[in-house]
Amino acid sequence: MKLEELGERALIGRIVRSFQVDPALVSAGAGEDDCAVIDLASVKNGYRYLLVTTDTLQESTHFPRGMTPFQKGWSAVAVNLSDIAAMGGYPFAFVIALCIPAKTEASFIDDLVAGIEACASTFQTAVVGGDITRSSELILTGTCLGLTSKPLKRSGARVGDVLCVTGSLGNAALALKLLNNELHVSEQLAAVAKAALFQPQPRIREGFIIAHSGVATSMIDISDGLALSIAEIAKGSGVGAELLADKLPVLSEELRYDEQLTLSRRERTELALYYGGDYELLFTLDRQVLEDDVMMSKLKQDVHMTIIGTIVPPEEGISLRTREGKERLEIKGYQHF
Amino acid sequence: MKLEELGERALIGRIVRSFQVDPALVSAGAGEDDCAVIDLASVKNGYRYLLVTTDTLQESTHFPRGMTPFQKGWSAVAVNLSDIAAMGGYPFAFVIALCIPAKTEASFIDDLVAGIEACASTFQTAVVGGDITRSSELILTGTCLGLTSKPLKRSGARVGDVLCVTGSLGNAALALKLLNNELHVSEQLAAVAKAALFQPQPRIREGFIIAHSGVATSMIDISDGLALSIAEIAKGSGVGAELLADKLPVLSEELRYDEQLTLSRRERTELALYYGGDYELLFTLDRQVLEDDVMMSKLKQDVHMTIIGTIVPPEEGISLRTREGKERLEIKGYQHF
Repeated sequence: MKLEELGERALIGRIVRSFQVDPALVSAGAGEDDCAVIDLASVKNGYRYLLVTTDTLQESTHFPRGMTPFQKGWSAVAVNLSDIAAMGGYPFAFVIALCIPAKTEASFIDDLVAGIEACASTFQTAVVGGDITRSSELILTGTCLGLTSKPLKRSGARVGDVLCVTGSLGNAALALKLLNNELHVSEQLAAVAKAALFQPQPRIREGFIIAHSGVATSMIDISDGLALSIAEIAKGSGVGAELLADKLPVLSEELRYDEQLTLSRRERTELALYYGGDYELLFTLDRQVLEDDVMMSKLKQDVHMTIIGTIVPPEEGISLRTREGKERLEIKGYQHF
Repeated sequence: MKLEELGERALIGRIVRSFQVDPALVSAGAGEDDCAVIDLASVKNGYRYLLVTTDTLQESTHFPRGMTPFQKGWSAVAVNLSDIAAMGGYPFAFVIALCIPAKTEASFIDDLVAGIEACASTFQTAVVGGDITRSSELILTGTCLGLTSKPLKRSGARVGDVLCVTGSLGNAALALKLLNNELHVSEQLAAVAKAALFQPQPRIREGFIIAHSGVATSMIDISDGLALSIAEIAKGSGVGAELLADKLPVLSEELRYDEQLTLSRRERTELALYYGGDYELLFTLDRQVLEDDVMMSKLKQDVHMTIIGTIVPPEEGISLRTREGKERLEIKGYQHF
């Protein structure tokens, strides 16, 4: 059945049934009233700062060919959660505005909504409301709320800090190249790469641990690409950065050593630097952490992370050190206009 | 200059300059970091409940011909503020996701953003963040945050309560008919009607006073039309309603008595009942208020309001009493699908 046959009220009824919330926290949820009502007394826990972020995913720009409706819904939540993670916050509530063509099948919405609920509930976030509008293309705008006692900003990096990243880089970029038939790997490995692109995992746990480590000075998510994100930290903090090409954790391990993958060293570095879609966190740590073996090994035990460079004085700009020497890092990545 | 020539980062820089926020409240604002950061200690004031609402406006559905970019921006904020008003809350923060065609002129965005900031600041609300995406049509999704100590829901109406509405009804509907050349009035009066449609005024002050009056039992905004909103209160509260056609405050006073406006009594009633675009509040008051002259006159002094009916037992359904007798109220209004 198509949405235009179902009607708006029936559609909303169908959607809101999917969202499970804790009634102690949410005293009016999706579809219930003019606003969602959240009891701050049961969520605040002494946290002082409210975090708010909004992010739009749009069919032709953000959804690669082959993505399922479930994964589209999942992603609409994940990209917003990633911004909460990047401040070291914990998310608690999410609203979603759906812009949907009238010819869409109701079953598509069921799957989309299942993906929204799956991602939100995986990260203990209540879907508390939304809106639905007819449009010419699929557009999903999520807004996520989080809390933190110490927001970790982009602006706190200082000269001498070490530059780090969570997880591995470039799986999503590799998936795009596989989809475009620019590269080939086994189906099994292709599935690993595509999972990164199609169903990104926001680093909520990691962001929280990093922000509360006592040694972190700045953080950002790298959804627009590593190079652009380093430039944001440099600009926000008034510093430069030196990035070590050989240290970049390019591709997750199963992909990194695959013999079918005939990528040069330079091509691998570019996978890590210039593509969006990796929802890892880029952060800086006070240099003292290098001398504190206990703290460093504790942090590495809790968070899959790699040191990839150093913060340098602003006049040195942003550079990439490779085996051939030091070069200026090109600042490019994904831009919408 | 078109947006595609300007580039995303320059565009964002241009937009965020327009948003003025109190740094004591907003410690990271639009364009500054992964999330907006709001200091709950300086905003909370003992209010326990956080209100969240999200609403999308889309070019072909929501923006009548003749609306300026400023008014489109204004409306994107106003429709969300109206939902906060409908819970009796006060708004404090707003984020806006802009979906914009690449061929849009940068000056259009300047005017749009000026409208967003004007509406938000008129109602003491900080624009703290947003997102910008390329799309085939203009789509604006706002999300507004508010606080309240006592959320006034749709579900509290009881049999015997009086049904009331703020302001007047049907100006926006009249404007649509004027735009379609179905009716004619003087230019001066047309401007009054169009102001209601093009630059709606959310009833924040009124909603707050009503919710804190001690006698209000339910509230909703009537943006989808009065008939649908009465049905929502009836459904949410498990009651029926009897509406008095002769009591409906149809059109603001300057329009109501205009001799050029050759509308029958029935046509006037329909203007009030079945069109969206009036951002007034529909609410119910405990019957005791009718016997308390002091309270009633105080409330009427603070809020421009009219008693338009009574809450009745659910088995009586929703009816309209006219000079010809009692009839079942048709439940129709604006629906998206």
